[in-house]
Formats: sequence, structure tokens, C-alpha cells
Amino acid sequence: MIDGNTEIIAHIGYPTFSFKSPEIYNPYFEQAGINAVVVPMGCQAADYPAFLKAVFRLTNIRGALITMPHKVVTVDLLDEVSPMVRVAGACNAVKRLPDGRLVGDMFDGAGFVRSVQRQGVPVAGLSALVVGCGGVGAAIAASLAAAGLARMGLYDINAASQQALAARLKDNYPGIQVDTGSKDPQGYELVVNATPLGMNANDPLPMDVSRLSPKTFVGEVVMAAEVTPFLAAARARGCRTQVGSDMLYEQIPAYLEFFNLQSTSAEHLRSLAMVRPSALA
Amino acid sequence: MIDGNTEIIAHIGYPTFSFKSPEIYNPYFEQAGINAVVVPMGCQAADYPAFLKAVFRLTNIRGALITMPHKVVTVDLLDEVSPMVRVAGACNAVKRLPDGRLVGDMFDGAGFVRSVQRQGVPVAGLSALVVGCGGVGAAIAASLAAAGLARMGLYDINAASQQALAARLKDNYPGIQVDTGSKDPQGYELVVNATPLGMNANDPLPMDVSRLSPKTFVGEVVMAAEVTPFLAAARARGCRTQVGSDMLYEQIPAYLEFFNLQSTSAEHLRSLAMVRPSALA
Repeated sequence: MIDGNTEIIAHIGYPTFSFKSPEIYNPYFEQAGINAVVVPMGCQAADYPAFLKAVFRLTNIRGALITMPHKVVTVDLLDEVSPMVRVAGACNAVKRLPDGRLVGDMFDGAGFVRSVQRQGVPVAGLSALVVGCGGVGAAIAASLAAAGLARMGLYDINAASQQALAARLKDNYPGIQVDTGSKDPQGYELVVNATPLGMNANDPLPMDVSRLSPKTFVGEVVMAAEVTPFLAAARARGCRTQVGSDMLYEQIPAYLEFFNLQSTSAEHLRSLAMVRPSALA
Repeated sequence: MIDGNTEIIAHIGYPTFSFKSPEIYNPYFEQAGINAVVVPMGCQAADYPAFLKAVFRLTNIRGALITMPHKVVTVDLLDEVSPMVRVAGACNAVKRLPDGRLVGDMFDGAGFVRSVQRQGVPVAGLSALVVGCGGVGAAIAASLAAAGLARMGLYDINAASQQALAARLKDNYPGIQVDTGSKDPQGYELVVNATPLGMNANDPLPMDVSRLSPKTFVGEVVMAAEVTPFLAAARARGCRTQVGSDMLYEQIPAYLEFFNLQSTSAEHLRSLAMVRPSALA
């Protein structure tokens, strides 16, 4: 129950319709007696720099969760960022230090990799294709690299984003083979849609699923539907899949710690959440 | 339950600790199936103009409730204000029109007067002392004048605020006798504390209660406690009193209509609210 002592975690992005965080964090806050609330705040790109600054002047702001399309631009709006943010080139969590400085971190990728590993897929030594090199794709690529991936394919419709991520990866992980420019999933053991395709009903699929091997493990970041058209097509090919919310649940304990709030397990969070349970669960 | 489709009503002021609106509006929204939420946003004076502008760029902002210390400054930050705002010199509700213009209105005073009248006190022809000529005091004075008050005493520690309100009242209601410069309640049939005194534990009383006649009806705007020290002292003198939340409940249907949300009665709102019921109820 929100009252005059409630602290805000601003969930900032646009559009907001597919946001799931309020329905995951808020039931946990209520159950744990934490007087905080995640509030969706729809903010378009042109308004974002001024809004981020303004919202962090509020006296009851606990932090912000940043999502599309702002994860990349956020990096340059803060006073301090974590090493993961620098490698990923993207940031999705911001808090204000007591001295007023804004600091950012990024746990999207860690949530994705941890969820893959929990489903029995060893990341070390594998090959992976990441389609979409915006904020979340870059974070996933960075965490896959940190987990010991052997070969990485990167693709983005924006060639500059793709090449910048490839360069950051090569700089930080010279032992990984990085290929760019193709979204053909053939030959990859792990394939990830990290584009927004699937958020709207008429979106095309992010890649040619007829080129997916049934042995490939397929992940998704879109959460507009529990099983997106892309995941449905991958399942029809016989692939094992991971839904967008799996990545989300696995990363939340890290965000709670970042915001200096009492944390809990991904399983506990999922048991309390008011969104439909994962079709994989 | 907040989700990605939830619209925000920003409750902006500082400090936020005594805010009651979230606990009144939100249970009603939930019961009525309205996907909106009132969120307290603590904003200090220096940050307010930029924050107000930024928050109204959000794609899911439904409106804002403005409270101390921003009600007066808001008047000059909007594109359009109601006649009541012009007389009161204060504004506590803002919405964005489809063309992007920000418009403001003010129902504090109407809520106060309606609540007084419902308790059987006819305002027309009476005398009233309003102590505190900031946003809420000015709104109450304007609504008392509109309801036919015969004589009005105004006092504020800030002489300029007091004189400006007196001038606006005389301009708009030349038939009312307006006296300024004294907070002595003797001789008034209706007395109102419209200062923030009572929000903090060690605040002095807003006036000398030993000068209150038991026949005087005493109202309060502070809601930090249901019965403030001032109201307790007035009751000890034998006065009938009206708590801050009475004004609040009576004005809410008007705000719901202003925000183009399904409205209801003050009684229905009070029955659903999660705050302690009025000690007068």
C-alpha cells in the first residue's frame, strides 16, 4: 500500500505496455514489508536526459530501472558506471549516492547467462549468436563472454552498434572469436533474440528460423507475450527455449542488492509475481 | 496492481510524509477497476519547475496533484488556469491537454467549504479568520468568498502573501469586509488553520487558542495527525472542529472529474480509504 513514506523505483522506457517489473517487484515488496514501489514511466528518447536528471532530484527516489530505448544513452548521462556497463556499453540500473552522484550498473546479461546455465546449458566453450546489439544484446554478449564463450556472432540492423560491440568485446576478451554481419543461426549452439521484434503483433521474426538446428538452445528478451512468435517457431523446430521472463527473474536479486533493499531468490520472486508463470516452469 | 498500462497521477510536494491521497485514491482505483495510481513524489522548491515540466512529458502521466510548497508557484508554470486558480493565486491540480498544453485547477477551497456546510454551518453571512495565506489558505478564502461570507480576516507571517490575497479578494468580491494583520480568533464564527504548523511534533500552535469562543467552528488543513494539537486545543475549549481529511474527501470527486476518471462520492471514497477514519465520523 503506497503512502507518504513510500520510495519510488522509476521504471523508465517507452513504450511501457510490456513492462513486467512492477508485477514482480511490487508483490515482493508488499510481502517483505519494504515500503517501495516500481512505477512504469513512459519516456520517449528526446525527453529522457532531462527526465532522468529531474527524477533523481526527488527526495523519495530509491533508484531507476532503465529499459528500451534508453539503455545505451544512459551510460553517458551518469557520473560513474560499473565495468560491466563499460563492456556492454549499456546501463539499466541507476541509483543516487548520498553525495548526489548518479551511478549505473547492468545485470541483464548476468540474469540471462545464469538462467541459461540453470537450464543445464554450459556456456563455457560454446558458440552463440546475439541478434540485436542495443543495450540488452550488448549486456548479454558481455556476460556470455565473461562466462567463457568460445565463438560469438553479432548482428544488428544498425551496423555501427554491431561493430562497436564487436570492438569492445575483442578489446576485453581477445580469446573469443567474434563474427559480425550475419543473423543466420545455422551452426550456433545458443541463439538469442535481443531485438524488440515481437513486441508488436505484426513484427517480422528476428531471424530465419528455418535455419535453426533442433539442437540449438534459443533465448528471447521480449516479454510482450510469455511465448513470442519467435519462440513458438523455435519450439516448432524442436529447439529448447528460454522465455524473456526467465532472464528477468534471475537478475532481480542483483538489482535489489544494488538498490540496497533486502534481497531474495529468483524462485521466491517468481512465486509471488502477479504475471503468468513461465510456460517453461 | 500496477502494470505496464498503469497511468500515473504524480502527487508532488515536500515533505511527502503526511501525504494521504495515495491511501484514498488508490483503493478506489483498485475497487473501480481504474488502472491508475497516485504516487508521492518528494520535490523541493528549487527542483520543482524542471520536474513539473519533465513529468508531464511522460507518456503515461494522467495528471498531478500539487501540494505544499508548490501550489502558488504552479500558477505561473502553466499554459492555462481556471478562474478559481486566478482568485486563489494557487493551483493544486494539473493535467495535460491533447495538444500538450498544461492546465491547472484548484478544488481545495471547494472541498473545505462543502465539508463545513455539510456539518450544518452556513457560510453565507458569517465571519471567518483564515490563518495562512499560502496556496491552501488562499483557496479556502476564495471559496468562502464565493459562498457568501460577510467578513474575512486574513493573516500570514509573510505580509506580502497576506496583502496580495486581500487585494485579489477585494477586487473580485467588493462586498466582503476584509481585515488583515491579526491572527486573533476572537469574534470570528469560523476559524481555519491553513498554515503547515502541526506537521512537525514541536510546532507552535498557529494562533492563541485561549482567544477562541466555544461557539466558533474550527477547521484545519494539516493531516499529519487526524486530530492535530491545534484541533485538540480547540476541542478542549468546547469548539466544534473539522479535521484536515474532511476537506480532502469532499474535494476528491472534483479532481477525479478534472482528470477525466470515473468519479464517485466522498462517502464512498472514505469507506474504501486505507487511512484511519475521521475522529469526527
